[in-house]
Amino acid sequence: MGPHPAVADVRRAVRHALGDLRPGDLVLVACSGGADSLALAAALGFHASRAGLRAGLLTVDHGLQEGSAGRAAEVVRLAPALALGLAEALTVSVGAGGGPEDAARRARYAALSRAAERLGAAAVLLGHTRDDQAETVLLRLARGSGTRSLAGMPARNGVYRRPLLGLGRATTVAACAALGLTPWDDPHNLDPRYTRVRVRERLLPALERELGPGVAEALARTADLCRDDADALDSWAGAAYARAVLTGVDAPDCALSDIDPDAVVVRVAVEGLVDLPAAVRRRVLRRAAVEAGAPPGTLSAAHVLQVDRLVTEWRGQRRIEVTGGVGVVRRYGTLIFARQPASPVS
Amino acid sequence: MGPHPAVADVRRAVRHALGDLRPGDLVLVACSGGADSLALAAALGFHASRAGLRAGLLTVDHGLQEGSAGRAAEVVRLAPALALGLAEALTVSVGAGGGPEDAARRARYAALSRAAERLGAAAVLLGHTRDDQAETVLLRLARGSGTRSLAGMPARNGVYRRPLLGLGRATTVAACAALGLTPWDDPHNLDPRYTRVRVRERLLPALERELGPGVAEALARTADLCRDDADALDSWAGAAYARAVLTGVDAPDCALSDIDPDAVVVRVAVEGLVDLPAAVRRRVLRRAAVEAGAPPGTLSAAHVLQVDRLVTEWRGQRRIEVTGGVGVVRRYGTLIFARQPASPVS
Repeated sequence: MGPHPAVADVRRAVRHALGDLRPGDLVLVACSGGADSLALAAALGFHASRAGLRAGLLTVDHGLQEGSAGRAAEVVRLAPALALGLAEALTVSVGAGGGPEDAARRARYAALSRAAERLGAAAVLLGHTRDDQAETVLLRLARGSGTRSLAGMPARNGVYRRPLLGLGRATTVAACAALGLTPWDDPHNLDPRYTRVRVRERLLPALERELGPGVAEALARTADLCRDDADALDSWAGAAYARAVLTGVDAPDCALSDIDPDAVVVRVAVEGLVDLPAAVRRRVLRRAAVEAGAPPGTLSAAHVLQVDRLVTEWRGQRRIEVTGGVGVVRRYGTLIFARQPASPVS
Repeated sequence: MGPHPAVADVRRAVRHALGDLRPGDLVLVACSGGADSLALAAALGFHASRAGLRAGLLTVDHGLQEGSAGRAAEVVRLAPALALGLAEALTVSVGAGGGPEDAARRARYAALSRAAERLGAAAVLLGHTRDDQAETVLLRLARGSGTRSLAGMPARNGVYRRPLLGLGRATTVAACAALGLTPWDDPHNLDPRYTRVRVRERLLPALERELGPGVAEALARTADLCRDDADALDSWAGAAYARAVLTGVDAPDCALSDIDPDAVVVRVAVEGLVDLPAAVRRRVLRRAAVEAGAPPGTLSAAHVLQVDRLVTEWRGQRRIEVTGGVGVVRRYGTLIFARQPASPVS
């Protein structure tokens, strides 16, 4: 008799995600003790022993809840039974800024990345499922921020891999039950003060009710299609940027009294931009602004659109301010991206 | 004293949308008598008299509700007061298939297009607002059908123009009130048997409640970004298709006993596909299937993905059936798209 179908599904997903690794490689799993990451940890232990991989578990103590250190210790103690040869609890201190969910996430990934590097891991597995992906797409949709954002979480990103993006949460819950594992239900996962909780507990059920079943799958499929589209456009924009950016002798020698002499100056030929489709041209302009020092997180589509008008609706506009003190002027058929000087000169 | 701000907003939108037309051109507005199209009709009348355009009104009687002919006649009678020199009620018979909303929409657009051609109109204005756009994006999102689908309704499409996509429904309602016009509230707009009604009355309010205000604007912004992205990718795919498709002497002379001798045969060189990003390659393959006769409406992303595996995971697969009897085989480095013969040979 084979394993329970849910257990088989999770194991297959892990095997598929680790097919390129070699015997002896170390794979870690980030495990909160919840159903998703617990099922993933069990499947990693199962697969690693067969594929000759070394496997370990990391759990993060955010220090945000009463008893969180004890919880982390419990997860660590599960490791031997899951056939994971290494287990560590990572204690982080969650900073402020960008909302409590953002701050916790940043602290968590920073700790995981440091541990992965210290231990020499070839991969760190994350337990995000198709349901998490659907929540992510819905959250980002409400921000109106475009294809890359709708692409949601990638299956691979640096050392991180998400083997379970093709499976629903019901599968990980069933897999844990079939294996006799008792997942931990984080009370935060039901706290409606968190936007993601409201998306999961209220919005996705409302969408399923009004539009019919299969909404989570459809949102995850949307993410996949948008990711492919965003990848293709980024590759086009990368090539277009390389052609349009002016370096060294190409750069025009024009008066730059209103530009910080110490600033990184990026010059882009308008000629290299005009014939590009809007979606590609705006990606090139965004890249130029970021290279000149504009923080990507605060550089909005509206900023980029204003810069774009220097190309498409040129009528002698003044310097366009974007973000991080970076501004853009058009002179002699060239867009010049640079920081403003500390004390502006006329 | 100038006009009410809402009236000014609608007029500005109409002026902006018609800036390329010349005096004497005929512009029609499709008017149901609802707030959106009524405010639009009034703004068209106002603008046309100043810009020297001829302007008229079309209203469609779907024959689906008691008294619909009387309703259409009432809308027609409004025309002179709105400074519209021409008005017609178009009677359509709504067929079956694809759900009642789809059938009514197809019948409506067919009638509008015929009238536009008969009357020699330069443009037909549609009253869709930002709220309609948000509903459309949400409906399509739930289908999981990608960037072009998420692009929603375009501001221009052939003879049709949608001047109000940047304005909310509240603006058209306020404009009607300020002008002393009484819009007709279609009871269908509150009938929860229609998916769009449930999206408008239940889902969008739920999204605003859980994610904060501005969701409709964000969805409309998403549509704009996705449209630009889809346009850019379509242009890339168009160029790639032209390079990869084999015609005349380029086409290999291979045995085609399992292909309908009367079928349109499209041949695409695998060599011209392998280096393309997935998003572009799949658009090229979709185009080839459609050119060979696959109906675009039933050709799914899953079909295209299967065909794509003939390029990326070639291991001697058999013929892949897509839709409309079209199948794809790979022979000698060429993908051959064609209809199956009525009685298969071999």
